[in-house]
Amino acid sequence: MHVRHCIISAPGKAILHGEHAVVHGKVALAVSLNLRTYLELKATSTGKVSIDLPNIDTFLSWDLSDLQPLVSESFAKPEEAQRLDPELLGRLREFVGVTNGNLDTRSMATLAFLYIYLSLFGSGELPALSVCVWSELPTGAGLGSSAAYSVCLAAALLTASGAIPAPLRDPSAPARWCQEDMELINSWAFQGERIIHGNPSGVDNAVGTWGGMLRFLSGKIIPLSRVPLLRILLTNTKVPRSTKMLVAGVKDKLTKFPSVINPVLDSVDAISCTCEKTLAEMTSEPITGEHYNVLEELIDINQSQLCVLGVGHPSLDTLCRVTLTHGLHSKLTGAGGGGCGITLLRPETDAAVVRDTVRDLQACGYDCWETSIGGPGVQQHGAPSVREDILERLGPR
Amino acid sequence: MHVRHCIISAPGKAILHGEHAVVHGKVALAVSLNLRTYLELKATSTGKVSIDLPNIDTFLSWDLSDLQPLVSESFAKPEEAQRLDPELLGRLREFVGVTNGNLDTRSMATLAFLYIYLSLFGSGELPALSVCVWSELPTGAGLGSSAAYSVCLAAALLTASGAIPAPLRDPSAPARWCQEDMELINSWAFQGERIIHGNPSGVDNAVGTWGGMLRFLSGKIIPLSRVPLLRILLTNTKVPRSTKMLVAGVKDKLTKFPSVINPVLDSVDAISCTCEKTLAEMTSEPITGEHYNVLEELIDINQSQLCVLGVGHPSLDTLCRVTLTHGLHSKLTGAGGGGCGITLLRPETDAAVVRDTVRDLQACGYDCWETSIGGPGVQQHGAPSVREDILERLGPR
Repeated sequence: MHVRHCIISAPGKAILHGEHAVVHGKVALAVSLNLRTYLELKATSTGKVSIDLPNIDTFLSWDLSDLQPLVSESFAKPEEAQRLDPELLGRLREFVGVTNGNLDTRSMATLAFLYIYLSLFGSGELPALSVCVWSELPTGAGLGSSAAYSVCLAAALLTASGAIPAPLRDPSAPARWCQEDMELINSWAFQGERIIHGNPSGVDNAVGTWGGMLRFLSGKIIPLSRVPLLRILLTNTKVPRSTKMLVAGVKDKLTKFPSVINPVLDSVDAISCTCEKTLAEMTSEPITGEHYNVLEELIDINQSQLCVLGVGHPSLDTLCRVTLTHGLHSKLTGAGGGGCGITLLRPETDAAVVRDTVRDLQACGYDCWETSIGGPGVQQHGAPSVREDILERLGPR
Repeated sequence: MHVRHCIISAPGKAILHGEHAVVHGKVALAVSLNLRTYLELKATSTGKVSIDLPNIDTFLSWDLSDLQPLVSESFAKPEEAQRLDPELLGRLREFVGVTNGNLDTRSMATLAFLYIYLSLFGSGELPALSVCVWSELPTGAGLGSSAAYSVCLAAALLTASGAIPAPLRDPSAPARWCQEDMELINSWAFQGERIIHGNPSGVDNAVGTWGGMLRFLSGKIIPLSRVPLLRILLTNTKVPRSTKMLVAGVKDKLTKFPSVINPVLDSVDAISCTCEKTLAEMTSEPITGEHYNVLEELIDINQSQLCVLGVGHPSLDTLCRVTLTHGLHSKLTGAGGGGCGITLLRPETDAAVVRDTVRDLQACGYDCWETSIGGPGVQQHGAPSVREDILERLGPR
């Protein structure tokens, strides 16, 4: 079997509002983060399957003859990505040498790749191919890097196998799949997320697939029809934190002071709803400075509420203070306690202001990217629509 | 008429929790601040009435013969301090040279003194006396300095006139009046506050009179029976602010984002109630570290809520950050936007920690006092129960 060549990208994810509150049944708004993961899949005639993950210094290659015995008789059809096949996963764990305790990024990425590859191609002759993935996202920073990876894998392997058509027409304009195909991509990406994370919410792969903004409430994920693209700075304080401990801390506070903390969660819920309403207005009426004033005010309020919940951190206070000296408003995104923050840029925010802000944040030891939120989800690219530096990372043309 | 000599002191006031929320019908907790205002009243044979206010470089003196014409036939009895006498106040404004626009501290302090003096002594022959007032409180910092002044004036002049008895028995132990006498002191102090502030809430003079802690809700002031004395640092950032503008800002936010801000006010209300309950427990059961943990956590939460309401300030963020590096928890007190903050000290907080914290805060340009909250209200002193440096400020023995 000869597979189709393709280049795919998928965005990362940021939580705009509602982190932590979502754990307690409140609305969260997840948005696509236009720091993207790129995947190039090539057909080869080497009799091998290889995966190259330069971000984590990983290059692995297997002979097709070694992979063939992992294939069992009964195989899920592509459209049957509802649950993990525990037997295939078990064989793969053994094959890759992953014991239960071994949950490093490299092993998880390998498992997810081989699982989707074997599931989609196992019913016929395995094809020789190489996959290279390069991401603009920092890993382990709560920005959905594993989901962007899983979405790219699912889209590429589904497209390469012919399970879904390649949407690309014009090599210079990225193309997207139809709704039904994206649902298939999302469901296979979710399998990848399950392999990597165990019990993911499904939000990250949904954002990676659909892009834009999603409303997440009590386990239900609702993509919002239209949202404006917002310029932001994404800052990684690089302060390590444990999401599990931060979530537990909020729960402790809620148990200890229910009458104090429950209204805070209600307030955060209202922040998400007000923000959603404002963003909807921005797509249906002319965008004004007042829209941005509201977005900024909601960011400030939510950042303080997250401090009420005890998930702030001095590094995040510094982020807010530094950006405010340039007239910019920031909040943490995700778990808090360090990690990442987003800073809203207004359409009129001058490049010089952005440059000076980035310089000051870097001087604090933070990583900082100028990017956007609310952009497109998974896309197929022709080489002309991919930045040169990324093409170089993906290997020789 | 020969008046009784007396030395009086009254405490300042801090808001422990509920500032701003109280404007919107929520509970606030006002506590006495043991930075005190001291007043010494002496009978003289100079034929003059004089007032010496060294804090504001004011010394004024009037011949009794000049004051006598201000007295009208009909006079309030001491127990009739329910409303201001507009005619007396009008005559006094003219006498002192206060036009409506002229609201400086010196003129207001003079008016309040002469009003209470003439009201209490005007039905008989005016006595010659001198009053000297020295305060440990910074003026105009929202710490109830004018109320402490008014309470001292009322207590001293009521005692000097014989309208209430002098409670002092042992010169080395400060003495307090009975409940009924304190109510009279409070009502005359409220007149002083009205002259100085126009439309005061009555909280400041109530705290100055009763001390301890008061619950303030929808204009009702309820003194709490027993509260523990808490060690604190009181820090004045010296950043000037307009209470009126800050209150208006909160109202704007509430109007703009009612679903976001109303729950915040509910949360602050719950903070005040939880704090009140915790303080009550501390007087009825053995005080534990956990009590202090709760008080600290409530301080942190409320400080963040006040930032949600938009009344924080970088100087207050700095206060919180600096004290937290010493393991101490702080919040703004009063209007915010600069002004003052309180830092809770635990019973076991070492003197070296306090010293280092004060040094670091002073290095930020702040004024800082180690004091306590929840202490006694207005007191009569014998000279032996007054600190030497204060006696010196009050003048020759």
